[in-house]
Amino acid sequence: MEEKQYLMLPGPTTVPPNVLRGMAKPMINHRGPEFKELFTGLTEVLKNVFRTKNDVIIFPSAGSGGMEAAVVNFISPGEKVVVVSIGNFGDRFAKICETFGAVVEKIDFPWGTAADPELLADVIKKDTDQEIRAVYVTHNETSTGVTNDLPKLRKALGDHPALFIVDSVSGLGAMELGTDAWNLDVVVAGSQKSFMIPPGLSFVSVSERAWEVAKKCTNARYYWDLLDARKYAEKGQTPYTPAIPQLNALAESLQMIKNEGLPQVFARHRLLRDMVRAGVRAQGLELLVADDVASCAVTAVLAPAGSDADTIRSTLRDRFNVVVAGGQNQLKNKIFRIGHLGYVQELDILTVLAALEMSLAINGLPVNLGQGVRAAQEIAMKANA
Amino acid sequence: MEEKQYLMLPGPTTVPPNVLRGMAKPMINHRGPEFKELFTGLTEVLKNVFRTKNDVIIFPSAGSGGMEAAVVNFISPGEKVVVVSIGNFGDRFAKICETFGAVVEKIDFPWGTAADPELLADVIKKDTDQEIRAVYVTHNETSTGVTNDLPKLRKALGDHPALFIVDSVSGLGAMELGTDAWNLDVVVAGSQKSFMIPPGLSFVSVSERAWEVAKKCTNARYYWDLLDARKYAEKGQTPYTPAIPQLNALAESLQMIKNEGLPQVFARHRLLRDMVRAGVRAQGLELLVADDVASCAVTAVLAPAGSDADTIRSTLRDRFNVVVAGGQNQLKNKIFRIGHLGYVQELDILTVLAALEMSLAINGLPVNLGQGVRAAQEIAMKANA
Repeated sequence: MEEKQYLMLPGPTTVPPNVLRGMAKPMINHRGPEFKELFTGLTEVLKNVFRTKNDVIIFPSAGSGGMEAAVVNFISPGEKVVVVSIGNFGDRFAKICETFGAVVEKIDFPWGTAADPELLADVIKKDTDQEIRAVYVTHNETSTGVTNDLPKLRKALGDHPALFIVDSVSGLGAMELGTDAWNLDVVVAGSQKSFMIPPGLSFVSVSERAWEVAKKCTNARYYWDLLDARKYAEKGQTPYTPAIPQLNALAESLQMIKNEGLPQVFARHRLLRDMVRAGVRAQGLELLVADDVASCAVTAVLAPAGSDADTIRSTLRDRFNVVVAGGQNQLKNKIFRIGHLGYVQELDILTVLAALEMSLAINGLPVNLGQGVRAAQEIAMKANA
Repeated sequence: MEEKQYLMLPGPTTVPPNVLRGMAKPMINHRGPEFKELFTGLTEVLKNVFRTKNDVIIFPSAGSGGMEAAVVNFISPGEKVVVVSIGNFGDRFAKICETFGAVVEKIDFPWGTAADPELLADVIKKDTDQEIRAVYVTHNETSTGVTNDLPKLRKALGDHPALFIVDSVSGLGAMELGTDAWNLDVVVAGSQKSFMIPPGLSFVSVSERAWEVAKKCTNARYYWDLLDARKYAEKGQTPYTPAIPQLNALAESLQMIKNEGLPQVFARHRLLRDMVRAGVRAQGLELLVADDVASCAVTAVLAPAGSDADTIRSTLRDRFNVVVAGGQNQLKNKIFRIGHLGYVQELDILTVLAALEMSLAINGLPVNLGQGVRAAQEIAMKANA
């Protein structure tokens, strides 16, 4: 049916009706008092979600734009950085660092596992001359559905003066993150994930220490200049035209998050993850990722032997209007990924599991109809008993 | 979650996003050329859904307004009518007829059953002086989920000159109806059912024979004057201000119905009904209505022994955001009614069944989680094998 789609991607995620309505508001002058009130208010509320007293800068861009800002403002050409990569988005951070002249030491972990803080500690320990200027870490790796243990990784850096820079584009808002409590210098997030608004905004929090580094950074930047953005933000403006509809949408979604309560939002995401995992397992399928590092935002499911993931995805989409993501790079056609972040409730998971069961059956794969749904129902019942 | 609701009523039904967008169009002059084009076009396309060459008049009103128009234009005070009632909406037709001075002979059938054409034929046979001016029949009885056999009922009237007047408010668009093929003089429909648009419009088709009766009818009417509405419709206007947003919405929804195809729309509604019935039965619950008269638009489920329907409904709503209807009059608290008409696809039924299973369990009623979902999945798989 037209537009009756279950968008179960790890972003963009489903946009709630009131957020869509927010986007339909008339344009306003981005140099006027209404904008100032909107923008200043949003920035303050965003800080609550980041759990920070640091500045939070809003860019009209994809999450990758925020990642680029987290590089070009803090690393000068020729400087050394460490990039901890557990998947596609860790690799992207390394690629951006290289593009802007950084000397990158990359610590790679097998796709589907989390980063081992010990290995980072070893690298830091060897850096006796303190040449490393920054450590780049992915919070939630969207390509595999693994969540890194940020507090432990931050601890591995210890008193080393390098900045600790986090990509939490698919993490922030779906799972615990304490910018200040965990001592994170820079945190990047995006609008089209747990914030439940369409793509078009990235958010970057910047610590005092990081601002000092930015002031001395020699990398050329105009659009991504955080210092310039901060200067404008102080008068309730942006250096160039902001994405006004997305900002109006953000006002709506931040209110929704406030109404539900951040702890409740996180508990819901944990429950959705547990339902997906129990349901998929009960269908006889295997998960890519171990329970203790499993993401609350996205779950990667291995295609069963003798089948390929993209065929199952096609059936889900063409036959049932359920859209899930495929595998990337080395996992292409080997996994499919069910996004369960943002505007998602328990019944949505049951729906997707029911569709998945039927899609497996349609592709001649062994499955007991209703069994995955039942396993997930039991998790939901227990959670609210 | 805010606005994340499964509205499974027999109306109002869920409004598709593009139809909602249609409603957000700017107001236009209802005496201008844009309105004329819109209104004339809509009226023509509506005739396809009614399967008629008769005039179709659009009122800015609830379906009950269309019912009143179907009385005050065709029955003069003191005239005799027969009302065939199988539930609440049959009773409503009788009540309206009485209100406007008709002498009503009501043929009542037990709630949950269909009308027996033989009994109507007997009444007609006895009317040797041909005093009966109209027979009022419900196509789809929303209060019980029973569909009457209109062709057989029409046949029972035979060559008797009485008008055959049908309330198809919850039927038209969800199930077969041939206004011309079945020789139906007046058919009433409403916007908030299978037409997938918000409440605010009723549609009344009028045969040539019925127009002749209307011209002689002495009942006072202004708002519901069909002749006046036809006169205005001929110049692409309405006698008074029309509900412009709903008309814009109708343009969208009629396009959707055309895209899917009316036979496919009917097949989908049959499948949804069969899924609901199989799923509910597999959960150990009983249905109010026998298979051969079961509605494709709404299904009444009996509350299991030792429970009451409204408690189950509350759990569905408060815990799972699933809204179903309660029982009316004599069936109050004894049944709940699942609407499955309009913008509904297979997965929606599985979702509601999953929620129903959990709601039964929460209320301490015996149920095997996943079992109803499985039974409905099997029906869906078979239908598309």
